[in-house]
Amino acid sequence: MPELRQNIITREWVIIATERARRPDEFVRPKKTITPVPAFDPGCPFCPGNESMSSAETYRIPEGEGWKVRVVGNKFPALSREGDRVRRIDGVYRSMSGVGFHEVVVEHRRHDLSPALYSVEDLAKVIRVYRQRYMEMRKDPRVEAIIVFKNHGESAGTSLAHPHSQITATPIVPTQVRHRMDEAIRFFDETGECVFCTTLRRELADGIRIVASTDSFVAFIPFAALSPFHLWIFPVRHCSSFDEIEEYEITDLAATLRTVLGKLYHGLNNPDYNFSIRSIPAREGQREFFHWYLTVIPRIVRTAGFEIGSGMYINTTLPEESARFLRDVLPE
Amino acid sequence: MPELRQNIITREWVIIATERARRPDEFVRPKKTITPVPAFDPGCPFCPGNESMSSAETYRIPEGEGWKVRVVGNKFPALSREGDRVRRIDGVYRSMSGVGFHEVVVEHRRHDLSPALYSVEDLAKVIRVYRQRYMEMRKDPRVEAIIVFKNHGESAGTSLAHPHSQITATPIVPTQVRHRMDEAIRFFDETGECVFCTTLRRELADGIRIVASTDSFVAFIPFAALSPFHLWIFPVRHCSSFDEIEEYEITDLAATLRTVLGKLYHGLNNPDYNFSIRSIPAREGQREFFHWYLTVIPRIVRTAGFEIGSGMYINTTLPEESARFLRDVLPE
Repeated sequence: MPELRQNIITREWVIIATERARRPDEFVRPKKTITPVPAFDPGCPFCPGNESMSSAETYRIPEGEGWKVRVVGNKFPALSREGDRVRRIDGVYRSMSGVGFHEVVVEHRRHDLSPALYSVEDLAKVIRVYRQRYMEMRKDPRVEAIIVFKNHGESAGTSLAHPHSQITATPIVPTQVRHRMDEAIRFFDETGECVFCTTLRRELADGIRIVASTDSFVAFIPFAALSPFHLWIFPVRHCSSFDEIEEYEITDLAATLRTVLGKLYHGLNNPDYNFSIRSIPAREGQREFFHWYLTVIPRIVRTAGFEIGSGMYINTTLPEESARFLRDVLPE
Repeated sequence: MPELRQNIITREWVIIATERARRPDEFVRPKKTITPVPAFDPGCPFCPGNESMSSAETYRIPEGEGWKVRVVGNKFPALSREGDRVRRIDGVYRSMSGVGFHEVVVEHRRHDLSPALYSVEDLAKVIRVYRQRYMEMRKDPRVEAIIVFKNHGESAGTSLAHPHSQITATPIVPTQVRHRMDEAIRFFDETGECVFCTTLRRELADGIRIVASTDSFVAFIPFAALSPFHLWIFPVRHCSSFDEIEEYEITDLAATLRTVLGKLYHGLNNPDYNFSIRSIPAREGQREFFHWYLTVIPRIVRTAGFEIGSGMYINTTLPEESARFLRDVLPE
């Protein structure tokens, strides 16, 4: 019989559809669907030498005359850097000026390199840049939430091959984030504990959904994973805001993320994926009930009308089997 | 400057990204991406004569020896018809037996016909079947929510060409539905009115986002539309549960939906889309604060890491322009 599972952190239900269950190896991407790209593309705004083709640079990790990692404005920003927050309320119509930040992190000089193939140190540099920009954006009093995310591949919503991620700072707290805060507070009310710390402790004790870990980070497939190979990477140390990550943790996160992306790359043949850092809203500080983390979502199935109509997901894999599959894949 | 808009019904924010705005006609699908299908496919389980290839029939509208519309079990049901609701709570792990219904409505005998090309009477028959199955499933005390939805085309999550829709009945109230109820109750607390009725009155007075209407249904693009051509079809009469739709309303809904789908078909060249009926949970009755409706979501853009990380959407079209564009398209 199929099973419904509830995500304790979001209260969302997922259907684990055993009747239509597929084995993890059925999700391996066919080789032919991957288009090879060159190491350098003269028309790419993110390739070295083409710096003038991208929007204004806001940060870089230099290397000689050049750079290792570079942050630029998004060419078509979803939010505008200039202007005041102005809220308009006209009956049922509620709106606000679209101020905030929308930047692109050019992760690497190489046009063709996937993060799954970076060195751990290269990936650590990218995470350091995330932290630097996060801290900077958080200083702006107009900013209420900061979302760090990556779109890898066409199914994940990008058409640019050069490895990059994005950082968006919004002038409101998204409803999804508000709901998660509410649920975390409720759990704290009932138990006196952080729901993320409690979940992590239990997952570590069970072990069956763990995929990889270092001293300070644990990657696992959640009990109520929304889709095949949906992964969470939790910091072991309780901490609410991503930008309070310590230097030793950056190295560990880079190693954990590198292992996870390497396992996806080699185990599923370079699937498209998104990852995103879920952190406490920008105006909040360290809170006992909230814990930042990183989520990785391979885009190997499509959402359809059921997901749209209910907000629930149907997952055709068993989280425990997917975790075992990924544990057995070598990340190199 | 971009604008943020808040959906008064869900409290969700959307970014209307004017900097990256695209004209409505930029979303017209290129002809070559559409694969022609035959009027009859001997291998299709939903084609007339192949009835034995599909799962057990639960309902039909007969026509002579055959049928006009047919309902069968989903071949790979996400939920099982048999069994009790058993809830298991083991610390942070919450689960439940996956009981419920998962049926397929074969909408038409023709393998190649899109609902955009049905007669209004054919579409009315399909809606009557939705109502009949909804009423039947609602009688089952294990059922908490019923989701009627359609996946049209591959980007919308279907691989079967034969026109069909689905009905799923779940043994829990999805969190999304719970949140919408809460917001509707809050609005009712503050104003003494249904938020849906209030929104509809205001949209009709303004007129700029209206796409089509009949005496009892209004189709419009919401003020805070999540994606290009995202549409709502609201019944004019306040009513909480879809299955309480009256016979005269079925004809009007069929006419409105037919017009909307026809406009999408001819204006955007048969885009993939999902539609879904949003109704009050099955165990609720008529309530002053809640109003059922139908949502249509063309799948012409992809969600990416920003949507996953924030739950917010970026819409690159102006709802008012998209509505004007669709108003001008003939549905035939």
